[in-house]
Amino acid sequence: MSDHDASARADRLAEALRESELDCLLVTQMVNVRYLTGFTGSNGACIVTPDERLFLTDFRYVEQAGEQVKGFEQLAIGRDMAGDLAKRLKGQAGFEDAHLSVRQQGKLADKAPDGVELVAAGDLVEGLRQVKDRGELRRMAAAAELATAALEEVLERGVAGRTERAVALELEQAMRERGAEGPSFPSIVATGPHGALPHAEPRDVEIGSAELVVIDWGARLDGYCSDCTRTVASGKIDEEAREVYELVRRAQAAALAVVRAGAQCRAVDAEARQMIEEAGHGERFGHGLGHGVGMEVHEEPRLSQRADEDEVLAAGNVVSVEPGVYLPGRLGVRIEDLVAVTDEGADVFTSRPKELVIA
Amino acid sequence: MSDHDASARADRLAEALRESELDCLLVTQMVNVRYLTGFTGSNGACIVTPDERLFLTDFRYVEQAGEQVKGFEQLAIGRDMAGDLAKRLKGQAGFEDAHLSVRQQGKLADKAPDGVELVAAGDLVEGLRQVKDRGELRRMAAAAELATAALEEVLERGVAGRTERAVALELEQAMRERGAEGPSFPSIVATGPHGALPHAEPRDVEIGSAELVVIDWGARLDGYCSDCTRTVASGKIDEEAREVYELVRRAQAAALAVVRAGAQCRAVDAEARQMIEEAGHGERFGHGLGHGVGMEVHEEPRLSQRADEDEVLAAGNVVSVEPGVYLPGRLGVRIEDLVAVTDEGADVFTSRPKELVIA
Repeated sequence: MSDHDASARADRLAEALRESELDCLLVTQMVNVRYLTGFTGSNGACIVTPDERLFLTDFRYVEQAGEQVKGFEQLAIGRDMAGDLAKRLKGQAGFEDAHLSVRQQGKLADKAPDGVELVAAGDLVEGLRQVKDRGELRRMAAAAELATAALEEVLERGVAGRTERAVALELEQAMRERGAEGPSFPSIVATGPHGALPHAEPRDVEIGSAELVVIDWGARLDGYCSDCTRTVASGKIDEEAREVYELVRRAQAAALAVVRAGAQCRAVDAEARQMIEEAGHGERFGHGLGHGVGMEVHEEPRLSQRADEDEVLAAGNVVSVEPGVYLPGRLGVRIEDLVAVTDEGADVFTSRPKELVIA
Repeated sequence: MSDHDASARADRLAEALRESELDCLLVTQMVNVRYLTGFTGSNGACIVTPDERLFLTDFRYVEQAGEQVKGFEQLAIGRDMAGDLAKRLKGQAGFEDAHLSVRQQGKLADKAPDGVELVAAGDLVEGLRQVKDRGELRRMAAAAELATAALEEVLERGVAGRTERAVALELEQAMRERGAEGPSFPSIVATGPHGALPHAEPRDVEIGSAELVVIDWGARLDGYCSDCTRTVASGKIDEEAREVYELVRRAQAAALAVVRAGAQCRAVDAEARQMIEEAGHGERFGHGLGHGVGMEVHEEPRLSQRADEDEVLAAGNVVSVEPGVYLPGRLGVRIEDLVAVTDEGADVFTSRPKELVIA
């Protein structure tokens, strides 16, 4: 993160604070702290007012914070972390209620000075994080590219005759060797009927020679996640499998074609869902079309039939587009791209082809 | 986990509930849920009363829970998770206040039936988890053994001339290849002056040929963590480094010798700390002697000079014993074993020697 990015983010947060009539916001969710400050340690917090920016961490991280955090006044906190934070709050003091535990909140309330009122502030920083800046888009593209290269290396060796777990391990190792901090979530490698479980865990089971294999994987690089799915064939597959594959491929392309700034989130979901419903598999697509991705692998906005009418995509959102069809006991197909939303459409981060590949 | 273990754990919790005058406990911390039920999915909760045991999860995990969870009535929860949980609470309803977010607690309170009062219940399940049963001790010994074998493989190839990051990656890969779910925490490989940072992150920096290298690593296996540290020499080291190493080795041995059921936590810490203070390095041992380990890598009890007078070790506790001396700008030494507390003393899980090894 450049100093410029950090400063712009804190500026946007200060603006959001003015609009919400909070006098300050205590940020304790570590991903949000990293987003605002660039700090990568495991313990820290910031307090932002419309005019002041304060970063606090414990003695272990003072040196690291000195290098990483710019544009924030820095303070060391001691063993009484709640007390050290509480005495710096003022007025209507927002906190991140989706993150702060009941116990932490109670300690803060006990130790806050007179006149401070703790206010559940909702997801202010998460709101900012939905719209990625240029540096973030560059990082996410790099994470996606790294993950794609890792998959290509693994597929070159073929998957038939190897276990799901061995393929998943190799994929994760290939990402690490290319510089990833790690996978952005536990990789899914699910063959044959196991592919019908959307959240399958890799097993010590060999991949056969004529199966569809769902591979859902991503890299974490420089704090940002990628997320992609390809379904490959381990050999010649039957007509039904081929048809389901083509259906999902067309549905995914149709949804991608309607992604753009201003598009309604549930309309994008519907674009793929209708096609799958018309083919008689509506019941077999049991999850939303996609979700925001960024520093966390599941963020807002959601592309879902349950999204509210007024939820629309904005330029700078990064979302997954991942329809699937799951036939219990038989097979599963999911095809997923990670895309940046622009005023003109969708910038797809993934370069892998979507025609059926025999690996 | 055998059905027997699960049932015994829920029995112990029911007993704790009776003592605390709670009518039920809502368990939402996923490690605690796994401890009680054996469930390994990412979403679920349980509600335990003195007489009833209820497990709830969403549709994705119903099949998996059917296989994993025994001795609990099972229910599927829908999209209104807070509502589904709240309506099953009764009377004085405990919740895990160190874990439940302010937002989640608010939703539960809104939806709970009349007559239900939500009560911060503290760390009841964490309290049970401090005393490991035989199955848990077996799993932890297996995790420690796996981690030791992985380190031995890596050390055989030597560390001088390779980067900290390469050694850390190889160590983690070696653990995965042996069946670990992953490392139990991000591995530390810190050479020369970098070893003086107790929480150093591995860098792309080559290990020299005459340095002390701190390696702190662990495996997660079957839900349980190991945690161990060895400091090795990458070649012939100077007299000062050798003296510091021997001091830490003696301090660690002295502390190990006083570990047993009934020993006061801070007295165990003092055993090592005094020896280090007498050698003039008291200021250079800036952390506690050790901590509980189990399904999480940091649990209670703590071996610390800040422990209360009445905190004593119990048979079945598993703790790390890890004194260190850190000379800023020069070197660091830490030696750590994971041990099970017994009535007679300490069962050390690690078989690696503690004499200085040149790797």
